[in-house]
Amino acid sequence: MQSEFNLIKEYFTRPSKNADLGVGDDAALVSASPGHQLAISTDMSVAGTHFFNDFPPYFIGWKSLAVNISDMAAMGASPKWATLAIAIPDTDKAWLSEFSRGFFACADAFNVSLIGGDTTRGPLNISVQIMGEVPNGQALRRDGAKSGDEIWVSGSLGGAALAVHKIQKNTLDAKKPSDQSLVEKLQHPQPRINLGLALRGIAHSAIDLSDGLIADLGHILESSQLGATIDWSKIPHFDSAPENLSVETIQTFALTGGDDYELCFTAPSNRHSDIINIGKSLDIPLSQVGTIKANEGLIVLDDKNNPISIKGTGYDHFK
Amino acid sequence: MQSEFNLIKEYFTRPSKNADLGVGDDAALVSASPGHQLAISTDMSVAGTHFFNDFPPYFIGWKSLAVNISDMAAMGASPKWATLAIAIPDTDKAWLSEFSRGFFACADAFNVSLIGGDTTRGPLNISVQIMGEVPNGQALRRDGAKSGDEIWVSGSLGGAALAVHKIQKNTLDAKKPSDQSLVEKLQHPQPRINLGLALRGIAHSAIDLSDGLIADLGHILESSQLGATIDWSKIPHFDSAPENLSVETIQTFALTGGDDYELCFTAPSNRHSDIINIGKSLDIPLSQVGTIKANEGLIVLDDKNNPISIKGTGYDHFK
Repeated sequence: MQSEFNLIKEYFTRPSKNADLGVGDDAALVSASPGHQLAISTDMSVAGTHFFNDFPPYFIGWKSLAVNISDMAAMGASPKWATLAIAIPDTDKAWLSEFSRGFFACADAFNVSLIGGDTTRGPLNISVQIMGEVPNGQALRRDGAKSGDEIWVSGSLGGAALAVHKIQKNTLDAKKPSDQSLVEKLQHPQPRINLGLALRGIAHSAIDLSDGLIADLGHILESSQLGATIDWSKIPHFDSAPENLSVETIQTFALTGGDDYELCFTAPSNRHSDIINIGKSLDIPLSQVGTIKANEGLIVLDDKNNPISIKGTGYDHFK
Repeated sequence: MQSEFNLIKEYFTRPSKNADLGVGDDAALVSASPGHQLAISTDMSVAGTHFFNDFPPYFIGWKSLAVNISDMAAMGASPKWATLAIAIPDTDKAWLSEFSRGFFACADAFNVSLIGGDTTRGPLNISVQIMGEVPNGQALRRDGAKSGDEIWVSGSLGGAALAVHKIQKNTLDAKKPSDQSLVEKLQHPQPRINLGLALRGIAHSAIDLSDGLIADLGHILESSQLGATIDWSKIPHFDSAPENLSVETIQTFALTGGDDYELCFTAPSNRHSDIINIGKSLDIPLSQVGTIKANEGLIVLDDKNNPISIKGTGYDHFK
């Protein structure tokens, strides 16, 4: 069987653009940019919990890095360096080759250098740490929301969760374009880095939507000790036309479904037109879906301004 | 069952001394020191591969961080920040409490701040990333060895491997002081940070001994494109007096046994006395065990200067 050192050489060693010393020593060496803070985050992906075992390895590689880059987007940081620790049950060359192809495709797309790693034997587990940079004091934090802020989300919500639902119910039709786009949402998330960078100095707070809007907006509200109202009619949800779903089900997917990796952010109403222009220039749909309130609590209103009760409050591995 | 967010709050959130923003946002924020490079490394620990399932959780916590800090020692870097991603099959409060107690005991001992993390459900897997700092250009690398360098090791070698051997053979006597010290070596490694810092500007190359002297020195030789001779008589091996082992077995443990987390480094002979003094001032045994040679290849000589053939070349998860 192939050695750990050869595995790293063959599949995970590339010239590291942004590094003084890359893969192959006890540690990598990098130089931080003056006047910047380092933004550092880690996300672990486990087979069966974060992706189906038959997920194509290319997309496991892409997504395991993309979900980390999404945390940089949520901070308004530029991603620069990543490390990868991976446990694999055996050295399946075809799997490793496709996994690393997807991982590096994501790294190249966002100008991230893989600077270190560890491969070991064990149940499939992929642990990535991402490091990025943000000018001193300009990071988009969860605790900066202000009463009266408008609440915005990018893209559309609930598509990834619907894809998971259809895969579990075995109702996904790989030939149907609408189902293909749902699977694309789930397997091939596109972190909103350019949006995060554009929101520096404009947004008061931001978070990426990994656990569902209600759960993730809830983190902003908790950190900022504020409340919010959301207008269901303004929520940009997945295209439900090809589906035969009740409004309640659509609401559940769009408001509590995880894995969309869109951004939710809050900004003062006097920046409304600036944000519209950012969306146009980046060609990213941006929707104002509610308002931050001084009183704690999160209320979702239907089009008659009646509160909606929503099942579940987002994905949590331990609930 | 307890939520992922509460687990992080209860067991893994502490005030982060060295961080601008610690656990609880999409990413942590830290400020790098001017004139320094960042040293970054990651190590994953898997139940059954890196520790026995009945390993006390306190020591799983200690060791999962200590093996990462050891990589900072090998670079001559000061460890500062760590992230922890952990997959656990269920929320066993007693286990988590002991694990985090051991993890933070190690963090406090080496002035490391846990600045970020991820908890998820899955087969037990602990992935730690460590970040430290080293003054520009002063890192101890693997590729800096020079022909004629003296080869040094700290502490004693083979004790951890013998502990593993006795646990597997069920011959370990928890009441025997000599066996207790073997288990201490295995479960409670002490990264040689102070030694790594003292060797800046003196050592030409360094590595920490995680896979055994022959394998790890082999990485220095490969990176530096040089060879070496080792004198068995100079190898500071574990106390074999209480054991009934053949010389060949003692040599195998001392030369190819992993998990010692001592340092192996090379330095010019004119720094010999400086290194002796460093060992005295830090109260760390330092032994000169061989010499770097211009010709590639690693030869171990017995006390009659005859080459010894050694079974195995160190621990590799995929051999």
